[in-house]
Amino acid sequence: MPKVSFRLSEKETIDVNVESGERLMDIARSSGIYIDAPCSGNGTCGKCRVQILSGETDSPVTRHITEEDYAAGWRLACETRVMGDVTVLVPETASAFRTGIRTADLNDPTVRAAFDDVQADLKAIGVMGDPAIFTCELHMDPPTLDDTLCDSDRVERAVRAETGIADVKLTLYALRKLAEVLRENDFRVRCVLARDEDCVHIVDVGPVKSKKKICGLAIDIGTTTVTAALVDMETGDLLAKASAGNGQIRYGADVINRIIESGRENGRERLRKAVVEETIVPLVGTLCRKARIYQKQIYRACIAGNTTMSHLLLGLYADPVRMEPFIPSFFYSHEFRLCDVLPGMHPEAGLILTPNVGSYVGGDITAGLLACTLWNRDELGLFIDLGTNGEIVLGSSEYLFTCACSAGPAFEGGDISCGMRATNGAIEEVRIDAETMEPTLSVIGPKGQKPIGLCGSGIIDTVADLFRSGIISAKGKFAREGKRVRYDEHGMGRYVLAFEEESADGREVSINEVDLDNFIRAKGAIFSAILLMLRQLGLEPADIGHVQIAGGIGGGIDFPNAITIGIFPDLPLEKFSYIGNSSLSGAYAILLSRQAEAKVRELAGSMTYVELSNEPGYMDEFVSACFLPHTDSRLFPNSEVK
Amino acid sequence: MPKVSFRLSEKETIDVNVESGERLMDIARSSGIYIDAPCSGNGTCGKCRVQILSGETDSPVTRHITEEDYAAGWRLACETRVMGDVTVLVPETASAFRTGIRTADLNDPTVRAAFDDVQADLKAIGVMGDPAIFTCELHMDPPTLDDTLCDSDRVERAVRAETGIADVKLTLYALRKLAEVLRENDFRVRCVLARDEDCVHIVDVGPVKSKKKICGLAIDIGTTTVTAALVDMETGDLLAKASAGNGQIRYGADVINRIIESGRENGRERLRKAVVEETIVPLVGTLCRKARIYQKQIYRACIAGNTTMSHLLLGLYADPVRMEPFIPSFFYSHEFRLCDVLPGMHPEAGLILTPNVGSYVGGDITAGLLACTLWNRDELGLFIDLGTNGEIVLGSSEYLFTCACSAGPAFEGGDISCGMRATNGAIEEVRIDAETMEPTLSVIGPKGQKPIGLCGSGIIDTVADLFRSGIISAKGKFAREGKRVRYDEHGMGRYVLAFEEESADGREVSINEVDLDNFIRAKGAIFSAILLMLRQLGLEPADIGHVQIAGGIGGGIDFPNAITIGIFPDLPLEKFSYIGNSSLSGAYAILLSRQAEAKVRELAGSMTYVELSNEPGYMDEFVSACFLPHTDSRLFPNSEVK
Repeated sequence: MPKVSFRLSEKETIDVNVESGERLMDIARSSGIYIDAPCSGNGTCGKCRVQILSGETDSPVTRHITEEDYAAGWRLACETRVMGDVTVLVPETASAFRTGIRTADLNDPTVRAAFDDVQADLKAIGVMGDPAIFTCELHMDPPTLDDTLCDSDRVERAVRAETGIADVKLTLYALRKLAEVLRENDFRVRCVLARDEDCVHIVDVGPVKSKKKICGLAIDIGTTTVTAALVDMETGDLLAKASAGNGQIRYGADVINRIIESGRENGRERLRKAVVEETIVPLVGTLCRKARIYQKQIYRACIAGNTTMSHLLLGLYADPVRMEPFIPSFFYSHEFRLCDVLPGMHPEAGLILTPNVGSYVGGDITAGLLACTLWNRDELGLFIDLGTNGEIVLGSSEYLFTCACSAGPAFEGGDISCGMRATNGAIEEVRIDAETMEPTLSVIGPKGQKPIGLCGSGIIDTVADLFRSGIISAKGKFAREGKRVRYDEHGMGRYVLAFEEESADGREVSINEVDLDNFIRAKGAIFSAILLMLRQLGLEPADIGHVQIAGGIGGGIDFPNAITIGIFPDLPLEKFSYIGNSSLSGAYAILLSRQAEAKVRELAGSMTYVELSNEPGYMDEFVSACFLPHTDSRLFPNSEVK
Repeated sequence: MPKVSFRLSEKETIDVNVESGERLMDIARSSGIYIDAPCSGNGTCGKCRVQILSGETDSPVTRHITEEDYAAGWRLACETRVMGDVTVLVPETASAFRTGIRTADLNDPTVRAAFDDVQADLKAIGVMGDPAIFTCELHMDPPTLDDTLCDSDRVERAVRAETGIADVKLTLYALRKLAEVLRENDFRVRCVLARDEDCVHIVDVGPVKSKKKICGLAIDIGTTTVTAALVDMETGDLLAKASAGNGQIRYGADVINRIIESGRENGRERLRKAVVEETIVPLVGTLCRKARIYQKQIYRACIAGNTTMSHLLLGLYADPVRMEPFIPSFFYSHEFRLCDVLPGMHPEAGLILTPNVGSYVGGDITAGLLACTLWNRDELGLFIDLGTNGEIVLGSSEYLFTCACSAGPAFEGGDISCGMRATNGAIEEVRIDAETMEPTLSVIGPKGQKPIGLCGSGIIDTVADLFRSGIISAKGKFAREGKRVRYDEHGMGRYVLAFEEESADGREVSINEVDLDNFIRAKGAIFSAILLMLRQLGLEPADIGHVQIAGGIGGGIDFPNAITIGIFPDLPLEKFSYIGNSSLSGAYAILLSRQAEAKVRELAGSMTYVELSNEPGYMDEFVSACFLPHTDSRLFPNSEVK
């Protein structure tokens, strides 16, 4: 039986006994070793590069590995079969998504400010009322031989008197503690109450003087990143926040590949476990440790995720989501028991999933829409969530149209040869001198961190400055010569941001014409979707009163750059704002407030879902938009090409 | 470390390593070896007799073991400490309660007939409507690009149309199966629906042609015996029935000893496990095997038990039930999730506990009251449940009074030197020839079974014939001489039903004056309670229109005998009927019908609970009733003393 030794770092090696002929990727997956596989391991993305240090493998030559690298032992883990004892170096980048991802999480001051603004807006509008979880103090007379009401009747009566709610139900969890807690505290207790339609559940009971915080959990399950916040349900305070890579990533970068993987043998359970047990459960553990609370102090959770994420979270059969006629199992779900979805949680805690509105417009967008308050304004607004996909809502207090455009993962560094997620070594900001063509880079990581690749914001900056300085044409073809502009034997040009000697891993960081093509198609998908929706309503870009961008694409969005290359309509900059992780902001609001919960359901119900692929004229719009900034230059009067 | 070898039979020996000085009873308990301990193991009942075959023990001389038996190694397990390697014979009788208990279960034709009568009555009255669980067939159009309703909306819409109920909720369990089941069956499916207040839950979904039965579980948790029935929720058919000894018995025969034990370290969990994991879970397994169904086909359960049993089932702190002012944690509970109480059951199945009305009048009595339909008649009725305790309901369609009398376990063979439960070897019927004083015995067990002791019905028969034939006086003292009447050195008389050579285990089976005293106090407790309740209402026994007796006391009740010795009022025999296990009958009705569920709650709410110990005159009534048949002979004009 051959042995594979995975060398993860100088200190850590993991040995695994395998069958001869097994795929390296499968061995890694079943051994809990994380190797990034945005394409789900079918050989197309080229991200699962590992280096064979010794031993025999069977591995084809691929366009993703240069001849030189191949000679040095570099292989794609998904295309390599083990034929004997093998030692494999797993480079840090291959599992980088597990740690240190820079996302729109609440530890980022910009994101936090955006989050706070959103909550202030929602409060001002008046949708943060009707708390979902609240407490009440009861001071009761102890029973006597003349007052023999049983404990549950006594407590329910007191809660009725205290809350004015007639229908009070004691849960089994609280009943199990009741007799002792009442007698230890001389019938003066604090109850944790949860509203449910017209009744109120007593979900817990404890001493009046308990300092125990009453907590809730807001979670955004992104295709790439899961972000969670632990919330004080009485004050709304953020007690802790944390994020982690979605453990499903090793089964595919995008929702389609995830669904395909989930359809394989035991796939549903594998993907459910990857996000629940490998991602969310540890994240909740981290939050509880940070805030010094017990898991049982979490009495409610709200989870926002796209349609695929919510299906995989629950372990649902998701193939119908991706296959015509694209029918999800559910849009709206009733409140579940949290412990049925996240094992080990409080048995009476409820779980709200934010509603989906279509196969590709899910609960992350409805939560985000709630947060951006576009639905509360008379002027036309545009809300765009730039995640692994791009989703768009166009509307106002009068109507709401939404669509998803298959932008692909370019904005998260996918589909780009040197693309990477926004983690250590990612170039997140770029300026290119128009004269010298020399770049100035800002790299994520500790001081002196050398670049490894480009994340979404870095790509936008690069493309914008290449275009502005005429290094590339409007079609994304190289048009100038210079030290940093190189051409391969087939004449394909590329711009080198970091030469081999300047990079962290000795590999050149560059952007080539294939990358530019992929990127332009991604931005074209978004812009043409915006334009199509506007035109269907008989409107023009100039009619848009405000544009709100959500998502986590590294160093945030440089709006002038994004307009220059035609991602967004050419509008005055003051109309744009970045609202951070709007999905998490919305989940937080819904967690706290039943009014917000009702509002998001109302919003989801009133959204008109536009399936772009069914719309006549979409392909024409798309093709017209695959140009920098656009074939119709009148749309971009201010696009400043020098 | 000493070793104890428990010899359970010729074939089965269990070896346990122990600490020197450990109690044999504790060792047996922690090793899962059942030794009956009606008194909870405090040395008072003398039932935990075992024989030390070899090895050193420390064990006091006790009144429960004769000198001769002590010499032969007989000891009480609860008073014996192990001092070295020991071999212990555990006689079959010590664990007899585990198997073969003759109870009022549905396999007995009399009980089954009574059960069927009860259900026919309830149907005739019209309280069996509004089924709790039902199915509906849905034939839906599959989705298309023009009809993109998601699966859950499609199914909920179809259920609304089919049932006319507006509020339809899909459970997580059904959602998890939905997409696949719909597509595998071309959108023609059968849903299992559960009503809950004004809404209906879709708890399961499967193929239309599924032959899978939709089942429910009715359980009566008696202090001594647990009886369960598996029910077809669509037809009401009894698919299987079974009973087993309540595994808590080794922690005490009566509710008081159980509560005391539950108050010891880890006691709540120990008693909960004894009834749940050691008793009910295996019983449900047996039922499922018998009926060839999966546990997940059980969609609802109704459990009836006395107040203590329901508290211990849920793992509640039960001390307040037995201590002044006698306050249970709950009377009425909202519907629980069955899997929260019985692990491994269907996650969406509901559990109904029949309501308690006082510390000593519990859900077994409310269920029994529902079943006996006394509440639906204009004439005054008396309902008596002769279990480990005796509970009484007196009333009519106009009012309902109830009380519990601490009759003790005499009717189940407790508190009687040769008393035993109604299992193999128990004398269940006795006739004594008034002339010769020779007995004719009917013994439970295979043909030729020799007697071991007396169960409740055998005791009643014995006392009645001893009294009729003048062998004992009205005070329960021996008054005649003969071969079978013996006196000990203190002059205490006894009647020998089986001499040593006639018995199964070589020990005489007899009833002595202490036994008679205990029995007379037990019957006095019941009769005086009846009389006190009548007198409080200004009524006399003759006002009673009908008497219904429930409970399992062996061979059923011989009413003439019971009247002769003054257990029940002296009324025409046609006024008496035996209704078997009324608690299970009621639980069955409530399981099937939400109307029955509402009815039992209404009944519980309208019952007036009389705490006898608070009633002036109760002690006088009790003392007057401690006489055969009664000190006031006018109450028993027909008591036929020869």
